[in-house]
Amino acid sequence: MVETLVLPEGLKLESGAHLAPLEIAYARYGDPANPVVYICHALTGDAEVVTWWDTLIGPGKTIDTDRFHVICSNILGGCKGTTGPASTNPATGERYGLDFPLFTVRDMAETHRALLRGLGIEKVYAAVGGSLGGMQILQWSLDHPDEIERAVLVCATARLSAQNIAFSKVARHAIHNHDAMDVARMMAHITYLSEEGMELKFSRARRVPGAEMTIQSDFEVEHYLDHQAKIFLARFDPHTYLYLSRVMDYYEPFADGPAAPPTKYLLVSFSSDWRFGTEHSVYMEEQLRALGADVRHHEVESPWGHDSFLMDVPEYHRHVRDFVYQEAAATL
Amino acid sequence: MVETLVLPEGLKLESGAHLAPLEIAYARYGDPANPVVYICHALTGDAEVVTWWDTLIGPGKTIDTDRFHVICSNILGGCKGTTGPASTNPATGERYGLDFPLFTVRDMAETHRALLRGLGIEKVYAAVGGSLGGMQILQWSLDHPDEIERAVLVCATARLSAQNIAFSKVARHAIHNHDAMDVARMMAHITYLSEEGMELKFSRARRVPGAEMTIQSDFEVEHYLDHQAKIFLARFDPHTYLYLSRVMDYYEPFADGPAAPPTKYLLVSFSSDWRFGTEHSVYMEEQLRALGADVRHHEVESPWGHDSFLMDVPEYHRHVRDFVYQEAAATL
Repeated sequence: MVETLVLPEGLKLESGAHLAPLEIAYARYGDPANPVVYICHALTGDAEVVTWWDTLIGPGKTIDTDRFHVICSNILGGCKGTTGPASTNPATGERYGLDFPLFTVRDMAETHRALLRGLGIEKVYAAVGGSLGGMQILQWSLDHPDEIERAVLVCATARLSAQNIAFSKVARHAIHNHDAMDVARMMAHITYLSEEGMELKFSRARRVPGAEMTIQSDFEVEHYLDHQAKIFLARFDPHTYLYLSRVMDYYEPFADGPAAPPTKYLLVSFSSDWRFGTEHSVYMEEQLRALGADVRHHEVESPWGHDSFLMDVPEYHRHVRDFVYQEAAATL
Repeated sequence: MVETLVLPEGLKLESGAHLAPLEIAYARYGDPANPVVYICHALTGDAEVVTWWDTLIGPGKTIDTDRFHVICSNILGGCKGTTGPASTNPATGERYGLDFPLFTVRDMAETHRALLRGLGIEKVYAAVGGSLGGMQILQWSLDHPDEIERAVLVCATARLSAQNIAFSKVARHAIHNHDAMDVARMMAHITYLSEEGMELKFSRARRVPGAEMTIQSDFEVEHYLDHQAKIFLARFDPHTYLYLSRVMDYYEPFADGPAAPPTKYLLVSFSSDWRFGTEHSVYMEEQLRALGADVRHHEVESPWGHDSFLMDVPEYHRHVRDFVYQEAAATL
């Protein structure tokens, strides 16, 4: 069940803007007496983590809600209950839309911290996130290293490449200039899969083999993209897409010269991920090691590209399990 | 200078549709007494090959217009003088638009052949094309192997992958549903460059370092995409984009079981090309060898992705020179 914490005093953003009130939608699973595992979701997720990340999280799963108290909140700027561009701007009584202030991954991490303070929790046993989720945890751990004992960053990045920013730009251009979030979503799906994964899944199969040529959708991969775009338009706010894609472009936490974190890190990357591939995790690994951090990094073979973090890839789950339960027998 | 051949009887397309009249815009360079090198252009090119392919073709260049008679025509379905969706439909007196018949790469090759017949030319010393240009030459050489002595196929393909078709689909969806050819062009530019090339060219440079965050273009790579989209909108027809992208999706010449071609082939692919990368050329090489063809394939190191075929990459030019001039001392 999703609950909402309302902070009337709001949050002062890194830009200086003051966002008030701040509402944070969150969900909790398992016994509050158990160690806390905090989940940060990625671009299009929400607080109900046992639904969209059920490969990893739930009763008896790798992140076992029978043994941990799992908390996840909709992220700042989101459209699933936490204050974002679709929320009402108290200054106008209208939706914020493009008047919503620009924010940073640090602001997103501060929102998670505000939630935990509201729940009376000072530190977490582990924090876990994939992609933009991992980016939030990394920033949080660098800013407040005593609050996260173990950080699991799956196919995350600490610095988008020019190509990453380019895809991000095209998505924003489609949304902003053409009201075409469906185009943005289709393009994103191509970057979430791998060439190899798409070949395995679709190859050149046509819905009606041997039919006449058509300019309309014909190949199965086309129908897949049509379907993904349609369901996404029904569930997501275009302004949230604009803001969250932009947050990622500017993210560069190691440029701030952070201090040595006592957090222990597990980085997982996937062999066929070409969105935030292994070189992104290698960069984080190098930067964290240079700070003296305890960090391990595993590249896991998988044909499913960036999407692998949401899938049941046994070697990846084994690394997460080994890391999360290590030295934990006494506690758990 | 671009001239136009008008064929009142038109062309019967592979689909059975009859396209009449057929106009073919073409340009010729160098002495007509010299051996003919025929150029097929790619998606967005035109007949004036010494302009857009001046790295390779011109006086004293690798394809030397002082030694060869170079001919290039705007391709079928194009928007630079040859009959296409922007032409007038004689049945209605209006632009064809989406009433233009669907056509195939074979129809494109037949258009080139019709031009040559009109010019009184029966066979060519060499045919050269990159990307979609190479695809036309491959089809032509398989259908009429006696007409092309030497074929140079640069970063071409004989079968688009699921990922290729997916990008093609998103481009068409943007144009067809959102009148957003700018989005299609921006996305295409990402696929024409490589991750490495974009990093070398743009990295994370911002137009105004240290300026405030903005949802508008800020990083240099964003301004580059804005610029490319703007100039493209001014020069290209969206319907041509729709049709030519679709032609490529359906292309699969080896599925027809062609006969052994006497044409000699040079295939060049580029190490960082992820649109029609080396695996595409390897597939063509294998298929041509299985037919008993004389084929050589070189993968050339280059950071510039698919765009490498338009650039001055010395090793690539050397392979083209060696191949085009081989056994040719007497003739030339």
